[in-house]
Amino acid sequence: MAATLKTLTVELGERSYPIVIGENLLANAAAYLRKASVPDKSPLMIVSDENTAPLYLQQLETSLKNDGYRTVSAVVPAGEQSKSLDVYNDLITQAIEAGLDRSSTILALGGGVVGDLAGFVAGTYMRGIRFVQVPTTILAHDSSVGGKVAVNHPLAKNMIGVFHQPELVLYDVDTLKSLPPREVRAGLSEMVKHGLIWDKEFAYWCRDNAEHLLALDAAALAHGLEKGCGIKAQIVSRDERENDLRAILNLGHTLGHAIEAVAGYGQFLHGEAISVGMAAAALLGEERGVAGLYAETVSMLKALELPVTLPEDIDSEALMTAMQRDKKFREGKMVFIVPLGIGSVEIANDVDADTVRTIIERLKGREEQS
Amino acid sequence: MAATLKTLTVELGERSYPIVIGENLLANAAAYLRKASVPDKSPLMIVSDENTAPLYLQQLETSLKNDGYRTVSAVVPAGEQSKSLDVYNDLITQAIEAGLDRSSTILALGGGVVGDLAGFVAGTYMRGIRFVQVPTTILAHDSSVGGKVAVNHPLAKNMIGVFHQPELVLYDVDTLKSLPPREVRAGLSEMVKHGLIWDKEFAYWCRDNAEHLLALDAAALAHGLEKGCGIKAQIVSRDERENDLRAILNLGHTLGHAIEAVAGYGQFLHGEAISVGMAAAALLGEERGVAGLYAETVSMLKALELPVTLPEDIDSEALMTAMQRDKKFREGKMVFIVPLGIGSVEIANDVDADTVRTIIERLKGREEQS
Ligand SMILES: NC(=O)c1ccc[n+]([C@@H]2O[C@H](COP(=O)([O-])OP(=O)(O)OC[C@H]3O[C@@H](n4cnc5c(N)ncnc54)[C@H](O)[C@@H]3O)[C@@H](O)[C@H]2O)c1
Ligand SMILES: NC(=O)c1ccc[n+]([C@@H]2O[C@H](COP(=O)([O-])OP(=O)(O)OC[C@H]3O[C@@H](n4cnc5c(N)ncnc54)[C@H](O)[C@@H]3O)[C@@H](O)[C@H]2O)c1
Ligand SMILES: [Zn+2]
Ligand SMILES: [Zn+2]
Repeated sequence: MAATLKTLTVELGERSYPIVIGENLLANAAAYLRKASVPDKSPLMIVSDENTAPLYLQQLETSLKNDGYRTVSAVVPAGEQSKSLDVYNDLITQAIEAGLDRSSTILALGGGVVGDLAGFVAGTYMRGIRFVQVPTTILAHDSSVGGKVAVNHPLAKNMIGVFHQPELVLYDVDTLKSLPPREVRAGLSEMVKHGLIWDKEFAYWCRDNAEHLLALDAAALAHGLEKGCGIKAQIVSRDERENDLRAILNLGHTLGHAIEAVAGYGQFLHGEAISVGMAAAALLGEERGVAGLYAETVSMLKALELPVTLPEDIDSEALMTAMQRDKKFREGKMVFIVPLGIGSVEIANDVDADTVRTIIERLKGREEQS
Repeated sequence: MAATLKTLTVELGERSYPIVIGENLLANAAAYLRKASVPDKSPLMIVSDENTAPLYLQQLETSLKNDGYRTVSAVVPAGEQSKSLDVYNDLITQAIEAGLDRSSTILALGGGVVGDLAGFVAGTYMRGIRFVQVPTTILAHDSSVGGKVAVNHPLAKNMIGVFHQPELVLYDVDTLKSLPPREVRAGLSEMVKHGLIWDKEFAYWCRDNAEHLLALDAAALAHGLEKGCGIKAQIVSRDERENDLRAILNLGHTLGHAIEAVAGYGQFLHGEAISVGMAAAALLGEERGVAGLYAETVSMLKALELPVTLPEDIDSEALMTAMQRDKKFREGKMVFIVPLGIGSVEIANDVDADTVRTIIERLKGREEQS
């Protein structure tokens, strides 16, 4: 057990915090909260969803209660649809009714949806209270680190949010065993993204260990999550508020977010959508002169059993419109993160709409050609 | 005109910003925005309300448009009811539809309601974009400085918000001439509060110049606003996020917020409610040994024609419950800002509920006794 226990730190001055990755952590949650100076005088609220609550909520509550913490629990419907102002408002109401005050803490027990939603509650309740991430998906190795929290607007994803760093990320890898295979694959998409933008060796490691990762092999997972979280933490430490560098984490996301919105939230999982987006970015990289990029990128994504094509019937112009509403669209030009090779990217502010249109069409018929 | 032009600075490191107070500023707004490095490439959104829009919106729009800024305007209903998640959501929708991006700016043209609401939009749209305060009420000399922005929850005031500092506060005192007299008085309540917590001489100056202030005499107003903003700016500079010192700005607000909520938002104006709250705080101060405090405080509030009593039929227990939901209620004890004398206060964390109950009853029958 202790064999896989890892602790990383997100270095952000007085907002620094630990990421603890290991087995059997939920049962010892209280000890980690105490270490992170989470006070026990005010009530804590645990936010989970209808899938994670029956599996893990009691274990977390018991650990906290046995150690003198007072908790209340709020369970939201599972899925992206819960990242809405309506569900947010419900949680705020529950927090007020439960008497949460400025010394209270909100814990997110779940994947990126619960983390983003509960984090936005924590970031805005009484102008910001403490927040702890207890991720239970592979994807959340990305979403639980870095303090970006948000809900969606019907017109655009993650449109409403703040930066609000957690006090602690407590990552119990045992919880990953209950993940549906499709969610496993979607989570690995962000993992290989971290290799593609920052660490060539890690990108190839993901491909070479795809079978172990897909089978949730404990050692492979622990290494992959540590590496993935570590890369994310480094980037966030250097540019917390996305003034420049942090934007590279958006590889595949310009198109990815558009796919999610146009196909209808929940049709494509986030990780699936950005996998297609990373294939698109590779095509864009080739277009700009990096030979072989597409085949290499796609070999990695396919090893992880991720989609790399667009359905023929998806509305191309709707994708274009959605991309232009994206936060990464700035002052009239399209912004894409474009690979310079495996493990390194640049931020291109000057991509013209027609190049993007062509790539979308190629992705619709691409399967046969690759 | 230039005679009354004053510029103060809120010192907050890289988040420092100027407060410009003077006449005829709206017509020159664009020049001040340029000086504050507000970019013109992305659209700006001006938020005003149904009272301020017909009076001042065109003037502001014209100044900006003539100088190359692209603006869109959103007008909300006047009054506290607009500080709601519903109106907030409408503004976010309008911002998306107008194509606001990360380089965009939101301007609040109005009183504290528009400032708090538009500021919360600016603080959360795409995780935070630029914000400019263009206050048009006396009360807003307080609300426009310091970066506290929020909307109300039906169960508690200002419950949902963030800290989001503006780039600039542009305070055109000409706009105050159209204020209804009741709003003038309510605004002066926060002005004398700044004296009561920080500056004895200024508190007496407010009393001695009450007639000039109530008559909106330009020189008196300019001095009072400069002093009031200056005190607020100093306190915020020392404690931006209300870890300790900043709490003194809440003199009169524990009870004041409860009065607003229990009487129904809009029945008592904010300034009126905190005037009663400051009378209550003075009674609490006397209770704790400061002789003569109540009479002296009330003489100031009455000179400004502010209320110092509670209606007999207001529900005392409802006030107690509302106070216990207040953000200033921490870890089970009642927190009040209590005067040590005129011009100086302390933060009392140990006030017991029965003392507060007694004071509420005294305020219900107090008029005759004072
Ligand atoms: N904040 C960030 O920096 C950031 C980064 C990447 C992604 N995101 C966001 O994260 C979200 C996606 O996260 P996600 O993929 O974790 O989605 P999710 O939270 O919806 O979880 C996926 C599904 O798995 C279920 N689930 C979660 N844990 C489980 C477990 N241990 N066992 C069984 N089922 C479990 C959930 O109920 C859900 O049905 C998106 O909204 C995306 O925008 C945010
Ligand atoms: N953020 C802070 O630090 C802070 C501090 C104090 C108060 N506040 C908040 O400020 C709000 C109260 O502010 P307010 O008193 O300015 O209220 P307000 O914005 O509602 O303005 C009062 C009334 O005057 C009208 N008005 C505004 N300017 C006018 C003008 N120039 N001429 C004619 N009519 C005009 C408005 O339409 C409104 O009807 C409260 O919600 C309070 O919580 C916030
Ligand atoms: Zn992502
Ligand atoms: Zn106030």
